[in-house]
Amino acid sequence: MSRINRQVRLVSYAQGLPQVANFELVERPLPALQPGEFLVRVIYLSMDPFPRLRMSGDEARVPQLPLGMTMIGRGVGQIVASRHADYDEGSYVVGEVGWQEYAVCNGRGLRRVDPTMAPLSTSLGALGPSGLAAYFAMLRHGNPRPGETVVVTAAAGSVGSAAGQIAAIEGARVVGIAGGAAKMTYLRETLGFAAAVDYKNTADLSQVIGEACPHGVDVFFDLVGGKIHDAVMAHITTGARIVLVGTISNYNRGKGEVDSGSRHLYRLIRKRARMSGFMVGDYAAEFPAALEVLAGWLHEGRVTYRESIVEGLAKAPAAFAALFRGENIGKQLVRVADG
Amino acid sequence: MSRINRQVRLVSYAQGLPQVANFELVERPLPALQPGEFLVRVIYLSMDPFPRLRMSGDEARVPQLPLGMTMIGRGVGQIVASRHADYDEGSYVVGEVGWQEYAVCNGRGLRRVDPTMAPLSTSLGALGPSGLAAYFAMLRHGNPRPGETVVVTAAAGSVGSAAGQIAAIEGARVVGIAGGAAKMTYLRETLGFAAAVDYKNTADLSQVIGEACPHGVDVFFDLVGGKIHDAVMAHITTGARIVLVGTISNYNRGKGEVDSGSRHLYRLIRKRARMSGFMVGDYAAEFPAALEVLAGWLHEGRVTYRESIVEGLAKAPAAFAALFRGENIGKQLVRVADG
Repeated sequence: MSRINRQVRLVSYAQGLPQVANFELVERPLPALQPGEFLVRVIYLSMDPFPRLRMSGDEARVPQLPLGMTMIGRGVGQIVASRHADYDEGSYVVGEVGWQEYAVCNGRGLRRVDPTMAPLSTSLGALGPSGLAAYFAMLRHGNPRPGETVVVTAAAGSVGSAAGQIAAIEGARVVGIAGGAAKMTYLRETLGFAAAVDYKNTADLSQVIGEACPHGVDVFFDLVGGKIHDAVMAHITTGARIVLVGTISNYNRGKGEVDSGSRHLYRLIRKRARMSGFMVGDYAAEFPAALEVLAGWLHEGRVTYRESIVEGLAKAPAAFAALFRGENIGKQLVRVADG
Repeated sequence: MSRINRQVRLVSYAQGLPQVANFELVERPLPALQPGEFLVRVIYLSMDPFPRLRMSGDEARVPQLPLGMTMIGRGVGQIVASRHADYDEGSYVVGEVGWQEYAVCNGRGLRRVDPTMAPLSTSLGALGPSGLAAYFAMLRHGNPRPGETVVVTAAAGSVGSAAGQIAAIEGARVVGIAGGAAKMTYLRETLGFAAAVDYKNTADLSQVIGEACPHGVDVFFDLVGGKIHDAVMAHITTGARIVLVGTISNYNRGKGEVDSGSRHLYRLIRKRARMSGFMVGDYAAEFPAALEVLAGWLHEGRVTYRESIVEGLAKAPAAFAALFRGENIGKQLVRVADG
């Protein structure tokens, strides 16, 4: 008596912005569990930019997903059947589950979630990869000191909003860059950033950033790359730290296209500045300790987060596409089933 | 009874490569020394790339030298008259003296030289700014570990050759990039580098670098920027350190032109790599200790150096121009007077 699983599969590589038509929803019978496997009923899926790189068709840049495969993606869910001694039915896990209602897992790439610690959805955002990336990238690479100016791009998103708030906890003056009036209000009023710059409604972005950062930019936490990167780089101070966490402006480029423009090499020399690339997985051993700190800040109200939730697996492709149009504030989630 | 001073002055800003015609040789009477001043008879002048940036006419990039001014440049010389209590006649100093036979100084920007430690000329190269830049940039930014692969550009020059040898002392495998057969021989045979890549005679530079670095590039010590920078960046390893010490390929660009191309932002993220800009002046407090180490290596024969010396102040413009055509091996000096 096999259960039916609904899955969203990749059917074509994206040219430019991802489209709903790059995906299809299918129904497939669930295979029987093998020993060492367990079945996760997916509750929330996380919409993240990086899987876009694996659906460009450009094998030279990143290994590509085969067409017809269930779309990759992180999610949180509950174990509803288990043939694995370490994973009990009823418990919760977060990690790579794919865009589907049920995932057959063996534990690899998954982390346990305590559902009493905070709402389940936070395991994908503020108390998950977003919060952890913000925490380690800001504190280990950015190292903001009290009074320093920290600029965060994609500042209304889940990583950026957490990164800015963490810098503020460290005593820095935080300037957020995002697009649109709603995000400006969010950055200034909800997150309490010292200044917010609207890159979508600014004639001379570099000038506006300069006005928002009269003493220059000591820490540049970049999720975006492209022209916004340039506009911030024009204002780095001596000894500045540039933390590269993402280059979302480039994820929709075509085959062979790269983020190009001034490399700022001479500027980096003159300013004795440091630019470093970051991937959160390198800090996995320290996740438990960091999650305790992050949960503490959340409970004290020193870090707030926002979620944009769409209902139903079928909406995942549209939610993913909207991510690249910058439409969401905070973490973009898809609710696949009730928690 | 005033003495006559010969000086080389800047008479026009350079477009592209600096030309002899950008300079003129003049004779002027030396002014009388004021209290707190002393007179240095210049023995050697050092030809360095960075003053090129101050004769482009592009004030936006770097403050420009006024036309008619004595050309800036480091040199070493002997004090031949003094009205400064701390600087005795007969002693030697190195630092900014300008392109002239005699410099009126007050001590600022000068360092004392012990002429019994090593040949005077080394105070401008192996035991001067070149050696010090190589030492601090390689050891504090590059941090090569035994067995790692270190790539150095402009490797036959004074900074590059010292940097490569210091990396080898640390146990690294050193690959030098330079142009022309004579430099290949110098890198392989005199300096003992593991491999040498001739960028001037290579169809596919990135491929040749890949072959010379089968395990990738752990430390990239860059003096050049431009296309050579790109070719090396294609091979950086996870955790690579890129040390930016110069961008000589860009020093002859026109007004507003910058080093552009792929910024490698995504590569820096994927490789968790670090790119940092370096200026040797930041380490001035540690120069004495570093010079002792460098002098020890020199005397033990663990670091060797080469000098290219042209005779006479009048040859300085031609020697400076030749620097940008990559004609010299090791430190390019102009002998202005006998030591």
